[in-house]
Amino acid sequence: MLGHGSGGTMMKRIIDEVFFAAYAGDELLRGDDAAVLPAPGPGERLAFSTDSFVVTPHFFPGGDIGRLAVCGTVNDVATSGATPRYLSVGFVLEEGFPIEDLKRICASMAECAREAGVRLVTGDTKVVNRGNGDGVYINTSGIGTLADGIELGGAQCQPGDVVLVSGTLGDHGITIMSCREGLSFTTDLQSDAAPLNHLIADVLAAAPHTRCFRDPTRGGLASTLNELAAQAQVDITVEEDDVPVKDAVRGACDMLGYDVLQVANEGKMVCVVAADEAEAALAAMRANRYGTDAAIIGKVGEAQPDRGPKVFLRTAFGGTRILDMLVGEQLPRIC
Amino acid sequence: MLGHGSGGTMMKRIIDEVFFAAYAGDELLRGDDAAVLPAPGPGERLAFSTDSFVVTPHFFPGGDIGRLAVCGTVNDVATSGATPRYLSVGFVLEEGFPIEDLKRICASMAECAREAGVRLVTGDTKVVNRGNGDGVYINTSGIGTLADGIELGGAQCQPGDVVLVSGTLGDHGITIMSCREGLSFTTDLQSDAAPLNHLIADVLAAAPHTRCFRDPTRGGLASTLNELAAQAQVDITVEEDDVPVKDAVRGACDMLGYDVLQVANEGKMVCVVAADEAEAALAAMRANRYGTDAAIIGKVGEAQPDRGPKVFLRTAFGGTRILDMLVGEQLPRIC
Repeated sequence: MLGHGSGGTMMKRIIDEVFFAAYAGDELLRGDDAAVLPAPGPGERLAFSTDSFVVTPHFFPGGDIGRLAVCGTVNDVATSGATPRYLSVGFVLEEGFPIEDLKRICASMAECAREAGVRLVTGDTKVVNRGNGDGVYINTSGIGTLADGIELGGAQCQPGDVVLVSGTLGDHGITIMSCREGLSFTTDLQSDAAPLNHLIADVLAAAPHTRCFRDPTRGGLASTLNELAAQAQVDITVEEDDVPVKDAVRGACDMLGYDVLQVANEGKMVCVVAADEAEAALAAMRANRYGTDAAIIGKVGEAQPDRGPKVFLRTAFGGTRILDMLVGEQLPRIC
Repeated sequence: MLGHGSGGTMMKRIIDEVFFAAYAGDELLRGDDAAVLPAPGPGERLAFSTDSFVVTPHFFPGGDIGRLAVCGTVNDVATSGATPRYLSVGFVLEEGFPIEDLKRICASMAECAREAGVRLVTGDTKVVNRGNGDGVYINTSGIGTLADGIELGGAQCQPGDVVLVSGTLGDHGITIMSCREGLSFTTDLQSDAAPLNHLIADVLAAAPHTRCFRDPTRGGLASTLNELAAQAQVDITVEEDDVPVKDAVRGACDMLGYDVLQVANEGKMVCVVAADEAEAALAAMRANRYGTDAAIIGKVGEAQPDRGPKVFLRTAFGGTRILDMLVGEQLPRIC
């Protein structure tokens, strides 16, 4: 009901019975407007990121909007090399959204936060009229602490570097699309939504000259690599045969005319490393539960001076084509 | 269009042309997924808060949803005594929302951020289908740095303390309601939306034993004081005659049957201070541009052991009544 967003006793009850029941820590229970958090360690910088989640449906094989909301921001913070520490959670609820669904989402967020080792320390709830939302939208923002000397970013990629991906592509996007359209390509296809901060830490320990991490969410691998190429002003060439894709996902993409390299992932990490640390990075990924299908998929090269930085795909048949960024929208509201 | 939330080139264009044009700093322009921010000073703790904004209409006398989104989170962070430093901005846009309106909102956010002295360092944009939103929803989350030794919070209120408010009540709520319903009670009534971090800093400097700040947004003064009373397990008594209310606001409330003490404010601060610092705190408020109508409005007392903590209103006629928290919803989607 609209009254649950009022600031009054109805809102207090939802806070107590739903949010506190799921994930209350000291900061939330204090009931002040801002969470006060300990000082970072000496010299530690902060990493800060935000993401809103509007995925439909709210529940799908392998996860739900709550798990996605925690993973998405944890992963964004972690791409900087930081240790994610604290999350905020902002709900925009549509009048009539079932409290039971909200409880289930909050429980999922709490579980995922525990796995990632982050704490949900501050929150907000708004309720909008029926017809002005779609059940629930969630924003999470995250703070991480970043040790001295770690300087990751797309601009660090250099010719000669190696590109890795932490597992199979397209699982999340195709799962959501299958749910939404009532298709079933396979019984065991599920979203890959996962917190990857521990995997990133493992890679950084094994390959200290890692250039950058980026999670290929909306726009998929193709958009991510185009962003990196533009940031670093380099070319990137991907070997199509080396990109891990599940058969069910490939089949669905073929049938529906999607390019799997433009389909969203929520539990995969693209990583660019110095060539001499590539095998170490790969081994570190594969040793992590979320990286068992990790692969080396490509290389960074010099951009040609007569044209801008480009991403190429060397196809299974030996040809090479330009791999473009997604232009419009292939699968809306995937996260 | 949905494509503007795709992660692809359409999204890149909106980011470049709208968001970067309005408020790009170094962190945003880097184009990585997380903003990396300098280390806080030695011993400084962090304050972290989040707020989503769903106000309708998006533009109103005295402000717009963008100004509200910056002020709201700046004020929440500042209530801890922290200096607000960085904001994240998450947009949920409804398909069809005019780009010109978005540009106007972003310009307003940039201007308000400049006034508050905070930087918009990281962002996200999602687009939902027509009919699943209401033009634009905005989440902002904010990080502040909090000096050693400042420990503010509702639980710090003590019997004998004095309650202040930084200006007239009800301006924001009645302005929004007037806009929405096409009523005009007066030509010069406007929202009070304002960043109050400098006012808070002024009060803290003048009254170092300040117990807490709280901005009486949704649920108004009544809900705020009930929250404080419950946190500190104290009674609070407010003198109705001393509460500053504009004539136009009082008239509107009388006519429509609203209790002005339950109407939302977006540029006012409630402050509880030690009695011997009350005059200093009041003078500091009045010297600030947003505190010219500040007033001492009440006192903190001992809660009676035979009942829970209560808030009382001593009326203009000499009677006393219990001032309850708002129960349901008086004015939905006020912020």
